[in-house]
Amino acid sequence: MFDMLKRLLVGRPRRSAGLGETLLPKWLALPVFCSDPISSVAYATEQIVLVLGAGGLAALTLTPWVGLAVVVLLVVVVASYRQTCYAYPNGGGAYVVSRDNLGESASLVAASALLVDYVMTVAVSIVSGVVAITSALRSLQPHAVALSVGFVLVLVLANLRGTKESGRTFAIPTYSFIGLTYLMFTIAAVRSFAGGLPAAETATAPVTQTAALGGVFTALLLLRAFASGCTALTGVEAISNGVPAFRKPKSRNAAITLTLMGALAITMFSGITVLAVALHARANPDGNPSVISQIAASVFGGESVLFYLFQAATAGILILAANTAFNGFPVLASILGQHRYLPRQLHNRGDRLVFSNGILLLASFAAVLIIGFDANIDKLIQLYIIGVFTSFTLSQFGMVRHWNRELAHSADPARRRAIRRAQLINLIGAICTAVVLVVVFVTKIEHGAWLAVAAMIVLFFLMRAINRYYARVTAEVAPDQTPPTLPASVHALVLVSRLHKPALRALAFARANRPDVLEAVTMATDEQETRELAEAWQRHGISVPLKVLEAPYRDLLRPLTDYIQRLRRDKPRAVIAVYIPEHVTRRWWQNLLHNQSALRIKARLLFTPGVVVVNVPYLLGVASQGWLGSELSRERQTVP
Amino acid sequence: MFDMLKRLLVGRPRRSAGLGETLLPKWLALPVFCSDPISSVAYATEQIVLVLGAGGLAALTLTPWVGLAVVVLLVVVVASYRQTCYAYPNGGGAYVVSRDNLGESASLVAASALLVDYVMTVAVSIVSGVVAITSALRSLQPHAVALSVGFVLVLVLANLRGTKESGRTFAIPTYSFIGLTYLMFTIAAVRSFAGGLPAAETATAPVTQTAALGGVFTALLLLRAFASGCTALTGVEAISNGVPAFRKPKSRNAAITLTLMGALAITMFSGITVLAVALHARANPDGNPSVISQIAASVFGGESVLFYLFQAATAGILILAANTAFNGFPVLASILGQHRYLPRQLHNRGDRLVFSNGILLLASFAAVLIIGFDANIDKLIQLYIIGVFTSFTLSQFGMVRHWNRELAHSADPARRRAIRRAQLINLIGAICTAVVLVVVFVTKIEHGAWLAVAAMIVLFFLMRAINRYYARVTAEVAPDQTPPTLPASVHALVLVSRLHKPALRALAFARANRPDVLEAVTMATDEQETRELAEAWQRHGISVPLKVLEAPYRDLLRPLTDYIQRLRRDKPRAVIAVYIPEHVTRRWWQNLLHNQSALRIKARLLFTPGVVVVNVPYLLGVASQGWLGSELSRERQTVP
Repeated sequence: MFDMLKRLLVGRPRRSAGLGETLLPKWLALPVFCSDPISSVAYATEQIVLVLGAGGLAALTLTPWVGLAVVVLLVVVVASYRQTCYAYPNGGGAYVVSRDNLGESASLVAASALLVDYVMTVAVSIVSGVVAITSALRSLQPHAVALSVGFVLVLVLANLRGTKESGRTFAIPTYSFIGLTYLMFTIAAVRSFAGGLPAAETATAPVTQTAALGGVFTALLLLRAFASGCTALTGVEAISNGVPAFRKPKSRNAAITLTLMGALAITMFSGITVLAVALHARANPDGNPSVISQIAASVFGGESVLFYLFQAATAGILILAANTAFNGFPVLASILGQHRYLPRQLHNRGDRLVFSNGILLLASFAAVLIIGFDANIDKLIQLYIIGVFTSFTLSQFGMVRHWNRELAHSADPARRRAIRRAQLINLIGAICTAVVLVVVFVTKIEHGAWLAVAAMIVLFFLMRAINRYYARVTAEVAPDQTPPTLPASVHALVLVSRLHKPALRALAFARANRPDVLEAVTMATDEQETRELAEAWQRHGISVPLKVLEAPYRDLLRPLTDYIQRLRRDKPRAVIAVYIPEHVTRRWWQNLLHNQSALRIKARLLFTPGVVVVNVPYLLGVASQGWLGSELSRERQTVP
Repeated sequence: MFDMLKRLLVGRPRRSAGLGETLLPKWLALPVFCSDPISSVAYATEQIVLVLGAGGLAALTLTPWVGLAVVVLLVVVVASYRQTCYAYPNGGGAYVVSRDNLGESASLVAASALLVDYVMTVAVSIVSGVVAITSALRSLQPHAVALSVGFVLVLVLANLRGTKESGRTFAIPTYSFIGLTYLMFTIAAVRSFAGGLPAAETATAPVTQTAALGGVFTALLLLRAFASGCTALTGVEAISNGVPAFRKPKSRNAAITLTLMGALAITMFSGITVLAVALHARANPDGNPSVISQIAASVFGGESVLFYLFQAATAGILILAANTAFNGFPVLASILGQHRYLPRQLHNRGDRLVFSNGILLLASFAAVLIIGFDANIDKLIQLYIIGVFTSFTLSQFGMVRHWNRELAHSADPARRRAIRRAQLINLIGAICTAVVLVVVFVTKIEHGAWLAVAAMIVLFFLMRAINRYYARVTAEVAPDQTPPTLPASVHALVLVSRLHKPALRALAFARANRPDVLEAVTMATDEQETRELAEAWQRHGISVPLKVLEAPYRDLLRPLTDYIQRLRRDKPRAVIAVYIPEHVTRRWWQNLLHNQSALRIKARLLFTPGVVVVNVPYLLGVASQGWLGSELSRERQTVP
């Protein structure tokens, strides 16, 4: 049943050899890795306008300049990450780069930042997509949490099916959003030549405060507006993490896709910012109506089919932006698992060759955040970009060091020039992102970003602890130089409660292993039953001695472990082999009709040093179970 | 932790030899077994008045006659059950009696009826006790369900501690209720001589309908009133079930207690009915204020301390009436478990020598009923007495047959006369209870009793099915005449993933058992890891051959079970011993850091015929684990 459902939802399992099949062409890589940065143009302008609006009309006039600063930063970061694509064709992004160049601690900081950031990407993108839907369809508003969690589940399924399928699923809304945005720009250009556009819905809305420009207040306002606008940069690193998923030549294709993404993001962000300024669109703190929807309503006409299509595409790409994280998180977690900083299970590929455990882990954390924050986008977004810029900064500084080493190994002057150029690009990137990180930290820490910082700190120490644990275990179980030896002797105990075929089978198997000592052991919980067992033992003429352990408190475990302790004291170098005859039922409910003592005894003995447990199952209702009652007795063969 | 909590709540475990210590003297047996029938006088009169009230004032004048009928029935049933106490000193009540005399089917009907009835006793008694509390303290009304379930838990704990303790706990409210009721009768007698009592609060309440007496309607009304009044008889059979819990002479002490209980119930019920008639107390369908509380208010004065004491004692005994079921159900379930009609675990005595599983099962069912019926006493009470009278009837008819057999074996005329007398008493009892059963069935079936009947039918067939299952298993596992033989050969597989100490330990133990064939088996999920393992194998010079099973779908189970199937086909009489090296961690969370493949493989192999699983645990963090690395090698000793 469970298997059938799994096949239906996830698809047939794939052979490990088929790993190459899931590689992506560029046109599919773009929606898979870039829906996050592209979708963020839907709200980045609004974040700037929202902050500046608090400073009055004069402050709002600065919008284009703040937008320009964000565009410049985008150019710098994209240029910087292009170098990474070439330098690290095996991917890994900030974590791998920091690890190679800045050492373990820096790499773990980067990894913590990235992991937190991926979870935030899923939560923020999905919740803002749902906000877009619920603003249009008000009746869905009370179900925002359920809707958000539902979309997380949809993404989980799509990603469990494998990268290629998910790329296909996500291509349509991404390309629709891009196409409709450019269509909007074209129509806006034509209409403004032909006679002008109607102003935005909120153009005449009263502005709360009109302080004069200048002074510390304006500087802080600009910094806050810039920090908020930096949400446009989230997810830019996704491609550098995902280089191995590209078709060959991997690095070149990744760099081209990255540049393409940068060009799209910059033109779309600039166009929307220009239109927002031209149409005097204002942002409301509750996000309703959104700046981008006001622009679309002005350009397309508020009741037109194009307007509704555009809104649908916006909601679609916002929800799918979360998919970027579903491509990044599992790969990073798998690398961290391989490096023994996270549980190794994260490195296992599932039926469809994707890192299923990572996908499920990411979805769980995001769902917890969504439910915990009650799908409130205002509170969630405060936690967001601090992780992004932490990893940006570490990654760029790592690249600067990387080029230093390359320089040391390179003598060719043309090559050295190229390296110097790449290093300069990364150095500029590093300095810019470091400055932005400080700005973001200062302006956001008290509004909730402390929670993200705390999560990063916890993750950092957790990964260190996990790594130490694995190192300790590996050292402990490493074979030493002395060749493996056999136990001095084997003392076998066969647990019996009644004399039935399962017990006889266990006795027979124990005997076949020819232990040094063999005894049957029974715990005397019921006087009459014990007497009956002893009688049956004699009647059947069983030559193995039957040891009766008193169990005055009707607890089976205590007398048995006490007896084993005694044996271990007497023969410290012997191994105690405990044979447990077990009724195995065909249906789960039949277990309710059998004592589950065998299970409890097994669980307990697992923790007793020097004891080996041998399960001798007896399958109820199965006619042929191998040897019991077979005429060929090894005893007869070997002991004439 | 769990153990400490258990000790604190339940007490220290008791030795099986201490079973005699929990036997009850009569003064403790009375509250333990009789709180149910005694407490029912608190509502039996009200049930009669409630039904008759629907027939108008004229019908209400018939109250004493209906009460008399109930009293006569009580005398008959008590007299009848006295015979049972003597005839069956080992207890078992209706089930044992039916089984001995009427055959398996009748006994299972009786058992189903009793089990359902016990559950109903707990639910009805506790909920009506809570109603008594919430009528006084209105603010608790919304928490009726939680309160009821809370009282169930209290009873569970008291009973898990053991019979004697629970007897002590329950003696106080029972004797308080009895004492206060007789005090009420005394004061009422004195005050009515001294000048009369004030009428009941509802004496002047309008009566809805005043039809003339006579005809089918009145007859039906009387039958329904009588059926409702029969709630006074619930629990009378408890003593005959519990004879073994009495001190010696068991039968005599039980019979005396039964008579005492009958005398108490009859006098208290009669007294309350007389007072109800004299004070013109009326019953409200919502049970508020209850008839008995109106009487107490009239006699003691509505604001007196005695009135509040009486109300508290009423609530107390109602809740504790449920305890009768906690004494009856586990014993009956244990007998049914011993007879293989219910899971055998119900026959195990817990730490404190009580049948813990039965106690927990009863409490669970009662809690489900209370929650399912939202603690609504009106609906619950409809399900109640049909089970009681089913078991009464079967028990009495069984006794009639029992005496027939006794007659056949007895020649002494005095003894034969005594037997004839006892048989006559039981025959009258049987006929009376059979008639009442029909009355109850007809008047209650459509008001909810069908659910109780359905539960009885389900239980009946379930017990038959369980019995057949056990019979089949017992026949299947019974040893046959051929002596146990050894397997033709042992083919040992040691599962390895990497070459570490746990794997070496498993190899060493497998070798010590000298199987006919020994191979190490690894599943190739990761090419590189498999290559590393093969290299390490060679480097360490391990003589056991390493078999690599291809796992193209990264699933470990399939290749292994396929390989085992192949081996089994080739050597059908061999046993396949699969040795699984297992990392055992000291803390549960450490398991999260290890692959749990061993667990899944074990679970799967348990169901594969002809396979024996050998767990070779390696305890992480434990320095001395017995033989590995010990200098004394058996191989060296035995193979020079």
